[in-house]
Amino acid sequence: MPVNLKLPVAAELSAVAGLELGIAEAGIRKANRKDLLVMRVAAGSTVSGVFTQNRFCAAPVTVCRENLLAKTEIRALVINTGNANAGTGETGMANARATCAALAQQLGIAPDQVLPFSTGVIMEQLPIERLLAGLPKAVAALRGDAWLDAAQAIMTTDTQPKAVSRQVQIGGQAVTISGICKGAGMIRPNMATMLGFIATDARVSQHVLDALTKRAADASFNSITVDGDTSTNDSFIIMATGQSKAPAVTGLLTPEGKAFAAALNEVAIELAQAIVRDGEGATKFITVKVEGGRDAEECRKVGYAIGHSPLVKTAFFASDPNLGRILAAVGYAGIADLDQTKIDLYLDDVLVAKDGGRDPAYKEEDGQRVMKQSEITVRVVLNRGDAARTLWTCDFSHEYVSINADYRS
Amino acid sequence: MPVNLKLPVAAELSAVAGLELGIAEAGIRKANRKDLLVMRVAAGSTVSGVFTQNRFCAAPVTVCRENLLAKTEIRALVINTGNANAGTGETGMANARATCAALAQQLGIAPDQVLPFSTGVIMEQLPIERLLAGLPKAVAALRGDAWLDAAQAIMTTDTQPKAVSRQVQIGGQAVTISGICKGAGMIRPNMATMLGFIATDARVSQHVLDALTKRAADASFNSITVDGDTSTNDSFIIMATGQSKAPAVTGLLTPEGKAFAAALNEVAIELAQAIVRDGEGATKFITVKVEGGRDAEECRKVGYAIGHSPLVKTAFFASDPNLGRILAAVGYAGIADLDQTKIDLYLDDVLVAKDGGRDPAYKEEDGQRVMKQSEITVRVVLNRGDAARTLWTCDFSHEYVSINADYRS
Repeated sequence: MPVNLKLPVAAELSAVAGLELGIAEAGIRKANRKDLLVMRVAAGSTVSGVFTQNRFCAAPVTVCRENLLAKTEIRALVINTGNANAGTGETGMANARATCAALAQQLGIAPDQVLPFSTGVIMEQLPIERLLAGLPKAVAALRGDAWLDAAQAIMTTDTQPKAVSRQVQIGGQAVTISGICKGAGMIRPNMATMLGFIATDARVSQHVLDALTKRAADASFNSITVDGDTSTNDSFIIMATGQSKAPAVTGLLTPEGKAFAAALNEVAIELAQAIVRDGEGATKFITVKVEGGRDAEECRKVGYAIGHSPLVKTAFFASDPNLGRILAAVGYAGIADLDQTKIDLYLDDVLVAKDGGRDPAYKEEDGQRVMKQSEITVRVVLNRGDAARTLWTCDFSHEYVSINADYRS
Repeated sequence: MPVNLKLPVAAELSAVAGLELGIAEAGIRKANRKDLLVMRVAAGSTVSGVFTQNRFCAAPVTVCRENLLAKTEIRALVINTGNANAGTGETGMANARATCAALAQQLGIAPDQVLPFSTGVIMEQLPIERLLAGLPKAVAALRGDAWLDAAQAIMTTDTQPKAVSRQVQIGGQAVTISGICKGAGMIRPNMATMLGFIATDARVSQHVLDALTKRAADASFNSITVDGDTSTNDSFIIMATGQSKAPAVTGLLTPEGKAFAAALNEVAIELAQAIVRDGEGATKFITVKVEGGRDAEECRKVGYAIGHSPLVKTAFFASDPNLGRILAAVGYAGIADLDQTKIDLYLDDVLVAKDGGRDPAYKEEDGQRVMKQSEITVRVVLNRGDAARTLWTCDFSHEYVSINADYRS
C-alpha cells in the first residue's frame, strides 16, 4: 500500500501541445498488459536528459547518450517495461538500435532521432520480435491526452501509476508541464533517476534546458532512496515543445527562467516523492532534513546514511523510537572530522538528542507518538555550517523482502 | 538459525597462561543472564586494539583510546552487554570512567590500566549502580578456563556464542591463541569490528602486536558485513601474555612472525565468519571474491556493493538466480572508469556472465542449483589488474526485519 499517494485522474492531467503518447500491449514479459509506450515530439522542440551513473548501464542508456550527443533533433522516445536490456552484451546493443530503427522508419525520421528506454528484469535478452511487432500499434494510438495510460505502461513493481501536471503563467501566458515516472525498488538514483519523463509546451533554449534538467534531477530524483540500489537504467528526460504562447525561457535568472524552474522542480519533486510513497513495501514516508553542514555534499552523505540504514528503516517500520540508530548512521556517514558533541536530533517537533546525547527532557512517549505517524520528518542539525539538504525515503518492511524474493516469479 | 556454525565446546577452548576471565549476572538489561565479563591480563603482557571509525563512537571506545595512548600497561578489560553507552553525552563518559576506577580499585591497579567495552541498545544511560554492584562477583569468579562462559556473557542478538582456539608451534614450542567475539546486526566493521577479543601466550613486542592487530582485523572483521551499519562500539583487542616457552615474536617477516600471524589470522577469520553465519536472520553464508582489480581498495568497494545490496541479499534468501542484480551492484560500486564489457561473473563453478553479458551457455537451472546451497561463492572478475579481495556476508530475510523491528521489546 503506497503511503498517501493520490491515484492520478486522467481528467487532471494536461496534454502538452506538440507531444503525443501511444501505448500498446506487446507481451514483452506478460500478456494483456500495457508495456510499450511511444512518445512523439514535434519538430522544433528541445530535449535534455540525465542518466544513471551505474557503470553497468543498460544498452538503451548507451544509445540515448550517443543520440543526445549526436546533436540531431530528438523526435521520439520508445519505452518498454518487463525487460531492462541490461547485462545483455552486444545482442542488447543491437536490439536497442533495432528498436530505434524500426520506430524511425514508421515515423519518417532518422534512427538517431529516437531515444530508447527499457525497464524490468536484468540480464535477459529483450524479446525483440514482440517489441517490434508492438510498435505499429503504439504509433497508431498516438494522441495528446494519454498521460495516465502512459504512466501505467511504464510500471514494473509500482502499485500505482505516477503522473503530475502543473500550469504556470510566464509573461502572462499559460505554460503546461506534465510528467510521468515509474520505480519502486532498485531506487537510489545517482545524478539521474528511474524512468522519469516531463514534457512542457514552454519554449526553452537547449543550454537552459540542459541546466534546468540537471537542477530538477538534483532537487527531486537525486534526493530519494528506497533501498540504496542504483539502477542500471535510470533516465530522466525533459522535452520542451515551445508551442505555448509564452515568451521563451532563455536564461536561468530571468523572471521567466525562475518561474519556469520553480514549476518544473515542483513537478519533478512530486514525481520523485511518488516513487518513495510507492516504494516496495513502504508503510511510512520519511523526510530527512540535514542542516548546519559545511556544504550540501556532507549533508547529502548524512541523509543517505540515515536513509539507507536497514536498522533505521526497520525501526520506522516497527514504529519503535530506537533513535540511537539514527545517531549511529550520522556517525558513519563519512564526515572525518565530525564532532558528535555538537549534534542535535529532532523527530518532527520533538528534540530527541542535544549535543550528541539523549536530551534529558526527551520522553519515550513523545518519540513513540511521532513514530506512529505515516509521515515523519527526521531533522539532524550538525552545527558546523550553513548548508542544508533534504532527502526522502521510506521504511523497510517484511513486504520489501517478499516483493524482492518473488520478483521474477 | 545460524548457517553451519558449530556450537563451541568448553573442553575444546584452551586457557591462555596469564589471562583470567570472570563472569557475573549484573542485571544490566535483563535479569538472570550473564552480562558482565572481566578479563585480567598478567603483568608483562602486551595489548593492542583497533576501534570503530564511526564518528559517533561510544563513551567506552573513547576511554579505550585514551588509555591505550597513555602507554600504561593494560592489566584488565571490562565488558558489559545490554547497553552500548553510546549517544549518552557527558554522563556516559563519567559512567565509563567510574567503571574503570571501580575495577582498578578491586584489582589493585590504576584506572587507566583498564579498557572498558559496552554493547547493546544505543542512547540510553548505563545502569551504573547495577554494573558496579556486579564487578566484585565477576572478579571473584576469575579463572583461566572460562572462555565459553565469556563468549556467552557478551552476546546480544547473537543466537550462539562464538569462540575459537588454535595452537601453533613456534621455535618448537606450543603457543595458544584463544578468542571470542559477538555480533549479529549493525555489522559492517570499518577498520575495526564488533567486540572481538583474542588472547595468546606468545611473547610479542608492542610494535609487532600493533601491526599484527591491524592486519588480522583487515583480513577478518574488516571483511564482513551483515547489514552495512557500522556500529558505534566496534572494538577488537589482542592480548599477548608472553607466558609460553616459545621465542618472542619480534618481527613480521621472521619465521616466528609468519607462523604466528598465520595462526592469528585463522582465529580472527573464523571468529569474523561466525558473526556472518549468525547474522540476524541469515539463511545463507555468501563468500564474495572480487578478482582482477587494479588495487585491493576497488575490489573491496565492489565486494561491499554486492554484500550490501538489499536486492542481491533478498535474491539469495529466495534462492532466485536473479543475478543481473549482482552486475548492477558491480556497476554502482564507485569505480569511475569501469568497463562493463570486461566483467565476468561466476556463481561457484558456474560461468553466468562473460564480457559483461549473460554467457550464451549459461542455463538458469545451473544458477538455481547453486542458489539453493547454504554456502555460495560469488566470483567477480574485473579483468583490469591483479588485485583481489574476499569478503563474507549473508542473505536478507523476513527474520532480519522481525528481529530489528522487535529488538528493544
